[in-house]
Amino acid sequence: MTTTTTKIANAIEALIEDYHDFNASYAHEYDSFDELHRAVNSNTPAVFKGVARDWPAMRKWDDEYLANSVGDIEIATTPLGNADALVRVGDKDLLVEPLNQQMSMRDFLQQLHSKKGDVVYLQSQNGNLSFPEFALLAKDVPLSIAQMENIMGTKPDAVNIWIGGSESVTSLHHDPYENIYVVIKGTKTFNLFPPVDEYCLGFEHYQRGKYVRDESGELIVEGLDGHVPWTPIDPCLSKEENIERVAQFSLSRCMTVTVNAGDALYLPSGWFHHVMQDGDPCIATNYWFDQAYDGERYSMRQFYNKMINVLRE
Amino acid sequence: MTTTTTKIANAIEALIEDYHDFNASYAHEYDSFDELHRAVNSNTPAVFKGVARDWPAMRKWDDEYLANSVGDIEIATTPLGNADALVRVGDKDLLVEPLNQQMSMRDFLQQLHSKKGDVVYLQSQNGNLSFPEFALLAKDVPLSIAQMENIMGTKPDAVNIWIGGSESVTSLHHDPYENIYVVIKGTKTFNLFPPVDEYCLGFEHYQRGKYVRDESGELIVEGLDGHVPWTPIDPCLSKEENIERVAQFSLSRCMTVTVNAGDALYLPSGWFHHVMQDGDPCIATNYWFDQAYDGERYSMRQFYNKMINVLRE
Repeated sequence: MTTTTTKIANAIEALIEDYHDFNASYAHEYDSFDELHRAVNSNTPAVFKGVARDWPAMRKWDDEYLANSVGDIEIATTPLGNADALVRVGDKDLLVEPLNQQMSMRDFLQQLHSKKGDVVYLQSQNGNLSFPEFALLAKDVPLSIAQMENIMGTKPDAVNIWIGGSESVTSLHHDPYENIYVVIKGTKTFNLFPPVDEYCLGFEHYQRGKYVRDESGELIVEGLDGHVPWTPIDPCLSKEENIERVAQFSLSRCMTVTVNAGDALYLPSGWFHHVMQDGDPCIATNYWFDQAYDGERYSMRQFYNKMINVLRE
Repeated sequence: MTTTTTKIANAIEALIEDYHDFNASYAHEYDSFDELHRAVNSNTPAVFKGVARDWPAMRKWDDEYLANSVGDIEIATTPLGNADALVRVGDKDLLVEPLNQQMSMRDFLQQLHSKKGDVVYLQSQNGNLSFPEFALLAKDVPLSIAQMENIMGTKPDAVNIWIGGSESVTSLHHDPYENIYVVIKGTKTFNLFPPVDEYCLGFEHYQRGKYVRDESGELIVEGLDGHVPWTPIDPCLSKEENIERVAQFSLSRCMTVTVNAGDALYLPSGWFHHVMQDGDPCIATNYWFDQAYDGERYSMRQFYNKMINVLRE
């Protein structure tokens, strides 16, 4: 590397070290919106205890109620619970989308419990709780929370319901949203990395693919046009294995947070997250608020991203 | 420049442009602490209207009361109202400290009104309102404001009183503090530049100096050991004149805010500020709160500063 690129690399590594020195390695637990406000100010993950304790969904959402309240829905189907994840095909990894298929809530729950064959996951994440098919369930949770809107300074962009089993894992990625992730049943475990750790995650461009059924009805990967940037880091592997994939991963620090039923995770915009779940089924709703573009954070992250790319070129 | 340094310069210039695109060019005016909280979150200047409206200081602090309440104090004395400013000595600029001299509040106010001879400014900014000599005045203003502590998440580090006239100007600089600047009498006008504009201010190292009296009693500059980084930019000059001093100044954007008696300015940590005043005298108090080191802001600013220095070397 030239002296200049070495200086950039050194400054980036000092930034990551500074960040980890000045910030907690664990998520604080809060039970007041005032405390949550401070977590949002510093864009730091926090668990908000008991926020859903009194929501009707907490007692009403059992299999029978769900099956009677919801008809046909779109379900992400994969062979291994790996929706939107890297899949080795021949000698290369593709970023593979799930097969989205329509099924009744009753059949979906049955398939979920069977633990056999295809892995199914309700994860449409398109604001589904505002859709007609979920109108009855939408009555059991607030579609907006005044104190959260006050903290975020805006109404939620989208409210989603997620229903899945322990086979489904969401691979490491980040979103341009402030996220309040509320667990209704089961538990969710998040592996989190701060935005400054982007340098440690070794993003590369991967060809897109999707799961389709072959003649025998088996799910196989079909390549698609176009490439997308994704990280080869998998928090389910050991740190050593990940460092073999990306040397800079040694500088990163993973924050693992398990969120229980009735509690919520504040997942700040730009934080990388990998999500696992337990429960039969695990049910959650999440509130996405648009990230702030004013202030310094957004512009500075764009700048930081450019400096990382200077080293990649 | 090498390609890499060009890429850094381009990324810095894009950062400054992004910041100005996504942020207001003026200071919002608020009259509730909830609104102020949002300004603090985004580290954006804001005028807080009427915060001091009912403080006893607003009606009590006239010349007679001040002279009777306060004895000897330390006063910054300069020939031109230029404390801690660049002064041309021979063929170079020195950063010159004022002559600090003891005088009674009565003599100080008299000298302030006379508008003749030395320019005097009470600007000790060492937490002076907590000192015994100001004990009586300290009863007329809150030494801490509960809602501000809640927003800042800490008590003030220092509370200062400032008394000066229109001859005194504070040159462009920045502090590592969140600052609530409350005007009690007269008006203060702030010329503000966001932290990302550091690149536009062309910091250089200047030899230190201080004002001393020669045999004839006249104030002259005496050189001191050591150098300090300072900006040659003077908001009292035209933009063109400043661009002649620092070409990158063309990318900057100055936010000018005039604060009236009874109102306060939230001056965010790291913002560059140049301060002028009117009133006979102009009186203000300010509350300094330590800046936040957690979250991303502090670490990112350190990183940004290193990238600017890469271009300077």
